[in-house]
Amino acid sequence: MKESNYILTPKSEIEARIKRLQENMGDLTGAIILGSINLGYFSGTTQEGLIYIPRDGQPTLMIRKSLERAAEEAAIPPRPQKSLRSLRKDLDITSGARIGLELDILPYNYYLRLAGSLGEDVAISDISEEIKHIRSVKSDYEIDLVRRAAENLDAAIACVADHLREGMREIDLAAEVEKSLRLSGHPGSVAFRRFNHSLPMGHLMAGESASYPSYVSSPTGGTGMSLFLPQGPGFARIRRGQPVLVDYAGCYGGYMADETRIFCLGSPSPDMEQAHQAALQIEEAVALELKPGRLCRDIWNLSEAEGERLGYGDHLGGPEGRKAGFVGHGLGLEIDEYPVIGPLDQKIKENMIIAVEPKMIYPGKGVVGVEDTFLTRPNGAERLTRLPKEIWRV
Amino acid sequence: MKESNYILTPKSEIEARIKRLQENMGDLTGAIILGSINLGYFSGTTQEGLIYIPRDGQPTLMIRKSLERAAEEAAIPPRPQKSLRSLRKDLDITSGARIGLELDILPYNYYLRLAGSLGEDVAISDISEEIKHIRSVKSDYEIDLVRRAAENLDAAIACVADHLREGMREIDLAAEVEKSLRLSGHPGSVAFRRFNHSLPMGHLMAGESASYPSYVSSPTGGTGMSLFLPQGPGFARIRRGQPVLVDYAGCYGGYMADETRIFCLGSPSPDMEQAHQAALQIEEAVALELKPGRLCRDIWNLSEAEGERLGYGDHLGGPEGRKAGFVGHGLGLEIDEYPVIGPLDQKIKENMIIAVEPKMIYPGKGVVGVEDTFLTRPNGAERLTRLPKEIWRV
Repeated sequence: MKESNYILTPKSEIEARIKRLQENMGDLTGAIILGSINLGYFSGTTQEGLIYIPRDGQPTLMIRKSLERAAEEAAIPPRPQKSLRSLRKDLDITSGARIGLELDILPYNYYLRLAGSLGEDVAISDISEEIKHIRSVKSDYEIDLVRRAAENLDAAIACVADHLREGMREIDLAAEVEKSLRLSGHPGSVAFRRFNHSLPMGHLMAGESASYPSYVSSPTGGTGMSLFLPQGPGFARIRRGQPVLVDYAGCYGGYMADETRIFCLGSPSPDMEQAHQAALQIEEAVALELKPGRLCRDIWNLSEAEGERLGYGDHLGGPEGRKAGFVGHGLGLEIDEYPVIGPLDQKIKENMIIAVEPKMIYPGKGVVGVEDTFLTRPNGAERLTRLPKEIWRV
Repeated sequence: MKESNYILTPKSEIEARIKRLQENMGDLTGAIILGSINLGYFSGTTQEGLIYIPRDGQPTLMIRKSLERAAEEAAIPPRPQKSLRSLRKDLDITSGARIGLELDILPYNYYLRLAGSLGEDVAISDISEEIKHIRSVKSDYEIDLVRRAAENLDAAIACVADHLREGMREIDLAAEVEKSLRLSGHPGSVAFRRFNHSLPMGHLMAGESASYPSYVSSPTGGTGMSLFLPQGPGFARIRRGQPVLVDYAGCYGGYMADETRIFCLGSPSPDMEQAHQAALQIEEAVALELKPGRLCRDIWNLSEAEGERLGYGDHLGGPEGRKAGFVGHGLGLEIDEYPVIGPLDQKIKENMIIAVEPKMIYPGKGVVGVEDTFLTRPNGAERLTRLPKEIWRV
């Protein structure tokens, strides 16, 4: 009954993903995957259940609810999932097996029940890192969805120029961007894998509230609507001359793009304008390094060195003591995918989707800078988000 | 720097919450709480860190990021959180201590690190059930925020009458409701405690797509925008005579209200109209039982019996094989709080916030029914969501 915009994952795509996991399973007998994002990635459905992927042989998809819907969506015919108690028998897991689980997200109580049903003669280990690395390299199918997300995102951010008025509240402007994104297929929420982390659809904040700190793993915070989601747009009014940070995740068919542009009623102060130009230079320098084989640590060091050289060491990514610790991040089905462009020994590979976001934080004043989503190709990176990068004067 | 609409929790409120936990700690030495919702509930801030609440003595709030913001928000002065390695020393936890953790949400890998830092001579047990019961009874402060959420929600749902047009897509109408909610302080997302569960801001679906099944623990599903959030409004066009389900969670200051109304361009079919009337009768019957001391299992049985008696046993909460398994649920900071009005031995207490949602599911045709948020008082329940309950004909 689904509309044509509801995209089902091709069978060949699912088969290729499963094959990559099987090739990266080391000495495991198999992996039981039940976190909804990974489940959707490897089966084509996020209905409640699990997929068992043995290192050798065919996967088994078992669905508790809704079996009917999973049968319409999944690339593998689903079987009904019975009690957790019969799981070992249902999956034909033998004594001495080594089973991988997503221990990065599996709640402890859930793990206990699952481990209990597998029995003490089955060893459990963590498969989450291998899956993150597999998901960090995108297929042409996935890249097409990210391109579509980037197009929708460009349009939504550009609409700020039509709506920005003096004295309106951050949330008044944010609601227009959100509406534009929703109408073009955004689910309304942004998937974040990290524990205790969630995001509003974007960070739209003006002047000092953009530089107001929060817990979230991001260079920017913002007031937010309440202490229970203390980030993003709040009730502050937008004034003339303030840099207005517009940082959103677009999403289409589950896949995301990430982009930041700065708007201003009138002109920002000359020092903010200069800081913005420095951020653009750093983005270009980083983007030139997004080539297969490059080490994230080296790119991060280059970004930090550029920040110092240009005189923005105490603003790039935040002031001392609250620096973000990364200048870019992978994204796709979740906003915090690999690679992390920070002090890590991860390598850039072909067909990664990476958001680069050098931002200059001035506590009490505001934020300038830029963010674009790039696709890594053999000879360099292609920029998928395409709006002009200069400060938009309205 | 926060605006007046950003509400800080009064110190007396936090002190009362901590006292209730201390009184319900049994033989534990103390509890380490770090899930952001519980952390905010017991400290007044959801910045990254933890609160240690000993059974006897003063709590310790330790914040990693942002310490500056936590100091502005929390009712307890925060200390900087150092490495997890020094946690036991920092909290002065001695050998033989028994420490409660939120094992319902703590990821396994996180648990391992935390348990390692506490050491093998410290026993760990689950404190999550006790906290859920404590949070299920609301203070006057919390009830005021729920009332405000309910008022905003009434206004947002009523605006459907202004925007509903033949041929528009579900998402076009949903975007208007969402905008209204956002402008009045909704954070844009709905907190769901259960593993693998998330929600769009609401379920707005027309005709058959409202009855389209999904994994989510709810009587209704909906297509959604993609298989990665397969519920809620999609791209289907709204036609004359279809019942349009409008089910949203309002939110203000972190606290939620939940309400469902049915709209229709023209008139629904007589059988849908009759099913709607039956749902209203069941809601009234359930609401009359929301009194301190009543058992959830008994209320659930009454609801099921009423459904059978009125001839809707195969539609109430869903058709056979996909029934929701509850007719109401507690809510507050999360949408799935205690009590569950289902086959459970939980008791209704004074000052609970409970959404009652008898819905009639007709696969392939649509959904009718109602949902209101009630406050339990000594002699009965007060309805906080106040829109007229009849089908709104537009």
